[in-house]
Parts: sequence; C-alpha cells; structure tokens
Amino acid sequence: MAATELVSALLLFLLICSSDISSGEKTRRPQPCKRLVLYFHDILYNGKNAQNATSAIVASPAWGDKTTLAVPNRFGDVVVFDDPVTLDNNFRSAPVGRAQGFYLYDKKEILTAWFGFSFVFNSTRLKGAINFAGADDIMKNTRDLSVVGGTGDFFMTRGIATLMTDAFEDDRYFRLRVDVKLYECY
Amino acid sequence: MAATELVSALLLFLLICSSDISSGEKTRRPQPCKRLVLYFHDILYNGKNAQNATSAIVASPAWGDKTTLAVPNRFGDVVVFDDPVTLDNNFRSAPVGRAQGFYLYDKKEILTAWFGFSFVFNSTRLKGAINFAGADDIMKNTRDLSVVGGTGDFFMTRGIATLMTDAFEDDRYFRLRVDVKLYECY
Amino acid sequence: MAATELVSALLLFLLICSSDISSGEKTRRPQPCKRLVLYFHDILYNGKNAQNATSAIVASPAWGDKTTLAVPNRFGDVVVFDDPVTLDNNFRSAPVGRAQGFYLYDKKEILTAWFGFSFVFNSTRLKGAINFAGADDIMKNTRDLSVVGGTGDFFMTRGIATLMTDAFEDDRYFRLRVDVKLYECY
Repeated sequence: MAATELVSALLLFLLICSSDISSGEKTRRPQPCKRLVLYFHDILYNGKNAQNATSAIVASPAWGDKTTLAVPNRFGDVVVFDDPVTLDNNFRSAPVGRAQGFYLYDKKEILTAWFGFSFVFNSTRLKGAINFAGADDIMKNTRDLSVVGGTGDFFMTRGIATLMTDAFEDDRYFRLRVDVKLYECY
Repeated sequence: MAATELVSALLLFLLICSSDISSGEKTRRPQPCKRLVLYFHDILYNGKNAQNATSAIVASPAWGDKTTLAVPNRFGDVVVFDDPVTLDNNFRSAPVGRAQGFYLYDKKEILTAWFGFSFVFNSTRLKGAINFAGADDIMKNTRDLSVVGGTGDFFMTRGIATLMTDAFEDDRYFRLRVDVKLYECY
Repeated sequence: MAATELVSALLLFLLICSSDISSGEKTRRPQPCKRLVLYFHDILYNGKNAQNATSAIVASPAWGDKTTLAVPNRFGDVVVFDDPVTLDNNFRSAPVGRAQGFYLYDKKEILTAWFGFSFVFNSTRLKGAINFAGADDIMKNTRDLSVVGGTGDFFMTRGIATLMTDAFEDDRYFRLRVDVKLYECY
C-alpha cells in the first residue's frame, strides 16, 4: 500500500502542478453579487408523526425500511422533503419559502449526504427558485454545495451555498443554516 | 404568529434591499442565444401497461406502493422515465430525442415535483444533451427549471426551461411543453 | 409514420437553421482551463458482499428487488454509491477521493443511466468537490456529462466529463475512466 500511495501522491502532485489554478489565485476570490442567509427545518417521518413530518424516507437499501434510518450511518436512505425556510433559526418563524427536493445518505463509515433541491419563493416580495446540487460532508462544521441555477428573481444565477448544521436532534429533526453566496447575477 | 410574520417581512424587505438586483434590472433580461420548443410524453406504469409505459414508480413513502400513486398528492413517489420528445403535441409524431431521468413528488398539500433529467438527442441532425434540474410547481400555468449544462451541440450551455402542462389525463399520462431558452451558448 | 417523420425532419431542420450555433463554430471549442483524468470503481451490493460493496440498489421498479438488477436492462433501479477514485485503473491504488451520489437506469431497451454525483477530495493536496449531472448512454464508447459546479479548489467551475467504461464485470463491478475538462475556472 505504501508504494501505491507514494505513486498516487506523486501523480497527484504532478496533476496539480499542471493545472493553472495556483493557490495564490485561490485567495483572490470574487465578492458575491448577492447573498442570503436562510435556515431550513427537516422533520423526518417515523411512522407516527404524519402531521408534523416535512420529509419521508422513500427508498432504502435491502437491509433498511421506510420508518427507521438504516444502520450503519443511514447509508442508502433516500429522503424526499418539503421543508419550511425561515430567516432565523426559530422553527415557528413565518416561512419565507420552501426547501424542496431530496437528499440521500451515501457512506457506510460516517454520515455524508448528497442533495438535489431548490429553495422555492412565492411571495409578493420574492419570487423564483434557487437550485442546489452537491455533496454534504455532514461531520464537518461547514461544507459547500453548488448553486447550479436559478429562476425568477434568481434568474440564471450561480454560486456556493455553505451549510452549517444548526441543530440535530434525536434522528428526527435537523436544522441547516444556509449561507447562499451568488457570484453570477443577471 | 402575527409578530413573527411582521419580523420576517421586515427582515426579508431588508434582505432584498441589500441585494443588488433591482426590479428595474430584472426587466432587462438578455435575449436567448438559442431557443427550442419541445414536448415530452409520460405514460406511467400501473401494473398492467408494461408495453406502453415510459416511466415507473421506483420509490414511494411507507404508505405507498409502486403501481399506485401515493395519497395525498403523490408525496414521496419517485419516478424514473424514458419519454419520447416530439416537436409537436402529437404523441404519435416521430420522436426527435428522449427525455431521460427522474422526477419526484415533494409536497403533501398540493402537487409539486422536482426534476433531474436530460433531453438526449442522437440523430444525424442533432447530437448531444441538455441537462435540467429544478422544482416544478405543477399547479401553476408555467414554471421554470434550470438548464444546468449541455453536451455535444449544446456544449456548456445554460438557460431556463419553461414548462407548461399540455395534457394531464387520468393519472397515467401527461404531456409537457418545454420552452428551452438558452442564454449561454458556446 | 413516414409522413410524421418527414414533417419532424423538416421542422427540426428549420429549428437548427434558426439557431445561431453553426457547425463551423462548434469546431472552435475552447481549451480546458483545467483537466483531470480519474477512475472510479463501483462494486454493487448483491446480498452477500457487504464487506466489499461500495454501492447498493435502494429503489427498483415493481418487478425488481434490491439485491438483483432489474430485467430488462436494469430499468428503474436506483443505486447510491460511495466509490473510491484513483489516478490509474488499479482498484488497489490509493484513492485520491471519493465519488459519491447516485445513478439510475432509465431505459427498457438498452442500458442507459442518469448520474447525479460528486468527486469529493479531502487531502492536504486537493480539497473540495466537483459536481456532475447528466445522461450516460452506456453502450457508447464515450459519453459526456455536465460539470455543473465545484467547490474548494474547484470553486465555481463548469465543464464536461467524458466517461469511458474501463471495465464491466459480471454485473457486480464496473470501472469508469472520467476525463474532466473544465472550461470555466475561477
């Protein structure tokens, strides 16, 4: 293993040297043309909370089921959600939009997820959607998804969404803080 | 609730004021560099129509199954599809491509969906794919998804796809009109 | 059918003529600003290989199950994966990252798939993720997905990922060569 690791390290070093993004350039990142900090709240269906639940397991691996999170680390569970989006971290605040789409857990060893979803806004003040895709390395303090597009007030936008787990309670409730930094605005 | 709503409204107002896209700018949208209007046709598998079906439920919530749409509002059903794409609204027209990917229903109160799919072209006249992602607020007359990328004749494109439900029959057939407006062309 | 095909052909011809990308322009594609060639390895769970498996069927059509690939052509199977990414085609090489997300098989007549996933890097040399989406026409020698975004060292990138099946063994193992060509770098 040591030998293949060394070869891999060398090849990777060459790979990075041959790329044209130096670490110096990386520090000169542009300023966002638009920025929003929002929260969304996910209450998973567990067979008894149909009234309150905002999400449900819809697919699971052979060893899982749809009312219990799979062991280990929820690997293979796919969850569809329609979560309220709020401006602060209070679940009872009036929602300004909905987070709609899916996430799936994709690693056996630790908790990681992959998201495909939208923030959907439909008020007199804000209309349209921001569309997200990407990997969520849940155990890290912050992690970045891609904003892959937008519609309405967010026409054609692109950017980065930085997630933070703001609450994580007894397998049934989590709250994410999403810092949406848009770098392409029309 | 009134108080939190007021606070939310105020915060949202400030949020929007601080953003650099004014409603004046929004009216100055660019012209598409390329535009296509296409239709696709979805016939859902119901346990008896294996010959004709172009899509199938592959995941459903705990209370659902794979040959019946879940109640209420199909929430949690995930559908994989390979639908013919035509230039007009006639199901029997010769397909010019395929719409391939998935959609999922993601709201308990009304019909809404989330799409991840591609228009795949493979003729002498048109090759490549257009890749879509986004929320579909089905009950609205028109709604916008993002074109998140393209390949072949649609190399690196981005844009907006405006969906209209052109037909919706007895839970088993729907036809969408897709107005693909590309704003970034290479 | 002949008549509708003719009409479709004519309409499609007009459609293409009216678009502003001529075939002459298509040959003047830009050079990538960054390029990586990587491999990823997928071992599907079959009910007996829990130790080695890197992926699992989590959803399937009514006629399928989660330890056997659906017939015909795996249509409707959804697979969640966490696959090692290596710099060469040797499964035992030290991984430089993980490929995480899902693929689904979406055609009854032949093998085709749709991917939503990320290459996730987390080493001292390379950090961040590249996010992919698109259709995989598996029976073709090469096929292109979209790079829809990136984070960390791949901040805001876009591009094309050209897939080649490098190995495909007994329904349980495949290896993909991924030529990632990035055309937008920050």
